[in-house]
Amino acid sequence: MSDSITPLDKVGEFGLIRRIQQTVTLRQASTSLGIGDDAAIITPDANHDLVVSTDLLVEGVHFDLTFCPIKHLGYKAIAVNVSDVAAMNAIPTQLVVGIAVGARYSVEAIEELYEGMRLACEAYNVDLVGGDTTASRGGLTISVTAMGQVPHGQAVKRGGARPNDLICVTGDLGGAFLGLQVLEREKQAYMADPEMQPDLEKYTYVVQRQLRPEARMDVIHELRDLGVVPTAMIDISDGLASEVLHICQQSGTGARVFSENLPIANPTLEVAAEFNLDPIMCMLNGGEDYELLFTVPLSAHDKLKNHPDITIIGHITEKSDGVNLITKAGQPVPLRAQGWQHF
Amino acid sequence: MSDSITPLDKVGEFGLIRRIQQTVTLRQASTSLGIGDDAAIITPDANHDLVVSTDLLVEGVHFDLTFCPIKHLGYKAIAVNVSDVAAMNAIPTQLVVGIAVGARYSVEAIEELYEGMRLACEAYNVDLVGGDTTASRGGLTISVTAMGQVPHGQAVKRGGARPNDLICVTGDLGGAFLGLQVLEREKQAYMADPEMQPDLEKYTYVVQRQLRPEARMDVIHELRDLGVVPTAMIDISDGLASEVLHICQQSGTGARVFSENLPIANPTLEVAAEFNLDPIMCMLNGGEDYELLFTVPLSAHDKLKNHPDITIIGHITEKSDGVNLITKAGQPVPLRAQGWQHF
Repeated sequence: MSDSITPLDKVGEFGLIRRIQQTVTLRQASTSLGIGDDAAIITPDANHDLVVSTDLLVEGVHFDLTFCPIKHLGYKAIAVNVSDVAAMNAIPTQLVVGIAVGARYSVEAIEELYEGMRLACEAYNVDLVGGDTTASRGGLTISVTAMGQVPHGQAVKRGGARPNDLICVTGDLGGAFLGLQVLEREKQAYMADPEMQPDLEKYTYVVQRQLRPEARMDVIHELRDLGVVPTAMIDISDGLASEVLHICQQSGTGARVFSENLPIANPTLEVAAEFNLDPIMCMLNGGEDYELLFTVPLSAHDKLKNHPDITIIGHITEKSDGVNLITKAGQPVPLRAQGWQHF
Repeated sequence: MSDSITPLDKVGEFGLIRRIQQTVTLRQASTSLGIGDDAAIITPDANHDLVVSTDLLVEGVHFDLTFCPIKHLGYKAIAVNVSDVAAMNAIPTQLVVGIAVGARYSVEAIEELYEGMRLACEAYNVDLVGGDTTASRGGLTISVTAMGQVPHGQAVKRGGARPNDLICVTGDLGGAFLGLQVLEREKQAYMADPEMQPDLEKYTYVVQRQLRPEARMDVIHELRDLGVVPTAMIDISDGLASEVLHICQQSGTGARVFSENLPIANPTLEVAAEFNLDPIMCMLNGGEDYELLFTVPLSAHDKLKNHPDITIIGHITEKSDGVNLITKAGQPVPLRAQGWQHF
């Protein structure tokens, strides 16, 4: 990144779009026309369905640029939308991005934002095909709409779980939430003493989980290779408890999730201890891990039981059994959603 | 609309989504799954391309709720995106909507916004299939991504105009801009004297053009019925001059636009006179009319010359001739884009 600072009004909307357009590479055969017309043109593969998901990221609500590098923010904006596409069992193909940006932003900052998006497009093999760039009276708002393709009829919804299905989760949980706690604490310390040099090295793992989440496209491809088709799937944005409840509600089932089975990384455990927070609560309600939660028929057990990136955390039950966390002591405790409440 | 006022935090994000979901009707056969999962599922018709366009509408930049009823705003947010789909010669099919909304908004206001969107979805026969609802620290931001379908290879881009093609425009121009002038003036008067009762009756036409623009889907259908396929097309959001320049730039051509031929409605002319504004300038640079600008081969002349809603305003020339407005006196004047500059 150059150190120069160019006000946005120097290049204007069309100038900014041209600069962004020059950095875009198109990879998908289904992209027939990218940025530069009234709309992009997509020619979907035969016998495929399209999935479409949209998300808004709002400064001061979803991100804080005092501790989030803007390039990471660009990457994350794409990753969280790709995660929604993954959660449908689809492969991401195209996306459009709208940004509303206040006058205090420089051209260079916005180029950094798009550089992060470009890196994410490369990582997930997805094409940026259109967008909108406008002013805002306040901070930065990013809107991303992601599209993906899935063979006709093979999209996986939230409502397909059946009693005795296994409940699986990818990766580990709670890290993103604890990363946010670390960043908030360092921000307070910095505001009290701007001379302070934060030492984040021992928190690298959890901070990375917060600032640079990855969509689990790798797992989607692996499940295809294994011939395992989930019966229900959702990505973990609001917290495991909230997402298990979504699956059970839409599937008309109950569930038993075993607290002993919940996957947590050692660095996450250590930070939870430092903050005196219950690691189980961090995993259940922390959110923003962008791991996948999915259910599979019992018959898939042998294919998944030793998978290094997939943990079987429980099973689906009849609706009348309720949705319960089973404690170490074997006690059932009803799961409650304590996801965010922005308003 | 009920008169009650419910704070957004009373119902939360999920409660708001449920309320919105209940008002949604799905009409398109290609909508396989609407709101309520990680993503919507679309099953495009065989042999069709999809077009995708996205727009952000930002409070204080694109709209002012002191004079724009929020239901109209909802309608307009959809109409302007449908207009982009129309400008590709496509039929709109699905859309997703994200809103970021400040705490001062009530549930009832947001329901009114969605009621306007619902009316637009009905008018344009398009399905609201997904979205995102979140808080903002400031005003209201609306993000709309619209999708449409067009038979494979029949999308019309901006770059297909050829010398001797006729340049056509739908409806009439300048009204939306003058409507904005009227509304701004009344707002100033109201702020000076809140007792004032604005009398907008004589301005109904131009105010309506500003607050409730319509996408010209009717013309898209008529052109199909007539068997006329435009060589290039764009919708008029930034002003006729800017859009003619876009077509010429991307087509590698020049153009001659005859000022005498530019279509203006009588009420627009009257308001221009009252504000002492040159009606030609209002038509060229006013913007927000959301009419279609398109080019057709000379052979289409007889089919379009008497069409009540289409005006032939000039023709495409070689690039070396430049892009000119031909005045009443026959003088060529280079066209310049004076579209908005938000930053």
